Amino acid sequence: MTSSGPSSGALALLIRGGTDNWSNERWKARFTTACPGRPIVQVPEEGFDAASISYAAVWKPRPGELAGFPNLKVIFNLGAGVDAVLADTQMPNVPLVRVAVDDLTQRMTEYIVMHVLMHHRQQSYLAGCQQHKQWKPTQQWAAGAVRVGLLGLGVLGRDAADVLTRLGFRVAGWSNSPKTMPGIECYAGAAGLRPFLARTDILVCLLPLTPDTRHILNRPLFAQLAKDGPLGGPILINAGRGGLQNEADILSCLEDGTLNAATLDVFETEPLPVTSPLWTHPRVTISPHNAADTDADAISIYVARQIADFERGLPLANVVDRSRGY
Amino acid sequence: MTSSGPSSGALALLIRGGTDNWSNERWKARFTTACPGRPIVQVPEEGFDAASISYAAVWKPRPGELAGFPNLKVIFNLGAGVDAVLADTQMPNVPLVRVAVDDLTQRMTEYIVMHVLMHHRQQSYLAGCQQHKQWKPTQQWAAGAVRVGLLGLGVLGRDAADVLTRLGFRVAGWSNSPKTMPGIECYAGAAGLRPFLARTDILVCLLPLTPDTRHILNRPLFAQLAKDGPLGGPILINAGRGGLQNEADILSCLEDGTLNAATLDVFETEPLPVTSPLWTHPRVTISPHNAADTDADAISIYVARQIADFERGLPLANVVDRSRGY
Repeated sequence: MTSSGPSSGALALLIRGGTDNWSNERWKARFTTACPGRPIVQVPEEGFDAASISYAAVWKPRPGELAGFPNLKVIFNLGAGVDAVLADTQMPNVPLVRVAVDDLTQRMTEYIVMHVLMHHRQQSYLAGCQQHKQWKPTQQWAAGAVRVGLLGLGVLGRDAADVLTRLGFRVAGWSNSPKTMPGIECYAGAAGLRPFLARTDILVCLLPLTPDTRHILNRPLFAQLAKDGPLGGPILINAGRGGLQNEADILSCLEDGTLNAATLDVFETEPLPVTSPLWTHPRVTISPHNAADTDADAISIYVARQIADFERGLPLANVVDRSRGY
Repeated sequence: MTSSGPSSGALALLIRGGTDNWSNERWKARFTTACPGRPIVQVPEEGFDAASISYAAVWKPRPGELAGFPNLKVIFNLGAGVDAVLADTQMPNVPLVRVAVDDLTQRMTEYIVMHVLMHHRQQSYLAGCQQHKQWKPTQQWAAGAVRVGLLGLGVLGRDAADVLTRLGFRVAGWSNSPKTMPGIECYAGAAGLRPFLARTDILVCLLPLTPDTRHILNRPLFAQLAKDGPLGGPILINAGRGGLQNEADILSCLEDGTLNAATLDVFETEPLPVTSPLWTHPRVTISPHNAADTDADAISIYVARQIADFERGLPLANVVDRSRGY
C-alpha cells in the first residue's frame, strides 16, 4: 500500500543548524525528487496538518518537536550519530532509523586511512623539513611495524579495518559485543579493553556517543596504550563524537608524553571555540567535523527506499536499539 | 650445485652514496646472515680476488667498476630503478636483476594513497584553516568524482591502482605495452596517452627512466590533462625518477593554472638544491626521495633467495630487459 494522499503519508523535514548545503530548502528539493508524489513538509510550514505526517527526516531537531506528530510511523536521522535525537525525552516511541549509506562509509574510511598514513609516514616532520628547505630523509618503518586499533567495529570501523589491513598495518578492533573479522584481532567488552589498548600504537575512535561512552577518551585510557611502538608514543584519532573525549586530558597527555599526537574531527563544543589551545598545539591536527560529510542525494534516496520498503511491509534497516543508544 | 668455496661464488658489494643505513658495512652484515657460508666481499677490500666474484649487489656503482669481474654471473640492483646501472657503458652482459620485494611495493602504495587522499580531501586548505583557527568546512566530493591516472602499470602501479579502486576512486592506467586489470581502464602506447591524460584529474607517475621517458612530464603533457574535474585543476604526483620531469615546466604550469598542484618525491638534482623555487611554492609538496625506502633486510633475503634459485638452475625473477631499459 502506498499512501500518497494529502491527509497521510507526508514526510516532514526538521533540519536544524546545518550548513547551506543542508538547508531545509535543498532537502525539500531532494526529497521531492526522491519521493515522487509524496507530500514533503518543511516544518514549520504555513498551514501544514500535523496529523498528515507519517515520516520525519531529522537533523538535530529541537527537543519536543517530534512529539507534535500524532501519526508518526518512522523517524529517519540524516546522519550516523543519533545521540542528539535520543537526548529528546519526548521522542515518540516509533522506529528510529540512522543513515548507513556506502557513501558515508567510504568517506570515513578515506579520512581514517589518510590520517593513519600521515602519522605513519611522518608527514608533519617532512612538511617541517620542506618549510626549512631541508633534505633530511629519516628512518621509515614498514606498515607491519605499526599497530592500529579501532575503537568501534560497526560498519565504519570494519570498512576502515579492511583497507588498513590491505595496506599492511597490524589491525585490531574493539567492540562492546563480541565480533569476528578475518585478519583482525577482535577484542570485546570491558575485559577486552585493556589488552586491546596495550597493543595499540594508533587508536582510531568511531564509537557512538552513549551514557557509557561519554568521555571514554580520557587520561586513564590513554595511559593504557602501547609505549613500545615505533611512532614515539601513542596517537589518537577521534572521528566519532566530541562527547567521547576529555579535551583537558588530551592536552595534558600531549604535554607529559602519554600521547604523542592527536587528530580530531569532533569536539566537545562545535565549532571549536577560538580560545581552545587545541587549535595551535603543534601535535594536534584539526578538521571541522567533515570526516564523513555524506552526499545529500544519496541520503535522500536511502530514506525514500526505506519508506517504500516499509510501506510494502518489509523490515526497516539500521533501526536504532534505544537501550544501547546506537 | 652450491658454490661456497673461497675461489668462486663470492658476492661482491658495490654500494655507493647511500645513507648510514645503506653503508657497505651494514649490508655486509645483512648478507652474511642471509647467505650463510658464502664469501661476502666489500669492494674494494684488501687482497680480494676479482676472479672469485660470481655475483654483485650494487647501488649506484661507479661506471666501469662492474667490468672488473671476469666471472660475474648476475648483477643485483638494490632498488627498483636501474637507470644508474644501465648508464654504465662497460657493464658486463650478464643478467641484471632489480629489486621487487613486497615491502617496496607496499611502501610505494602507502605514499601514493596518502598523497592522492591529501589532495582529494583538501588537506592543504584544512591545514590553513587550522593555522588561522577557522572552522570552515567546505564542499567535499566523493572519491567516485575523482579520476586518478597511473602513468606506469608495473608491479608498483598495479598495487596502488588496486587500493585506490578500493577507496572508490575512478582509476585508469597507462603502460607502454598493453595490459589489462579488472576495474581499471587500461590505456597503452603512444596512441593511448592522449585519451588517458584527457580523463585524468590526478596523474601519478611511476614510470622507469629510459631515453624514451626522460622529461616526459612536461608542459605539452600537462596541457592534455582533464580541466573539468572537481579539484580546481590537474594534479601531478611523481614518485618515479627526477629525470622524468621538467621542473621549469612544472613551475610555469603551476603559475598559469595548467597544473593546480604537485607532489614530488624525486628531482632532476638530488638532494634538491636550496635554490630551487619548488621548496617554497605553496602548491608543491616535497619529500626527500623516501616514497619507498625499502627494508634492507627484505632486500638481502630477496637477493639470497634468487642466488639459491639460480644455482639450482631455476630462472631468475625480475630480470631487466636492457632493450626496454626496465
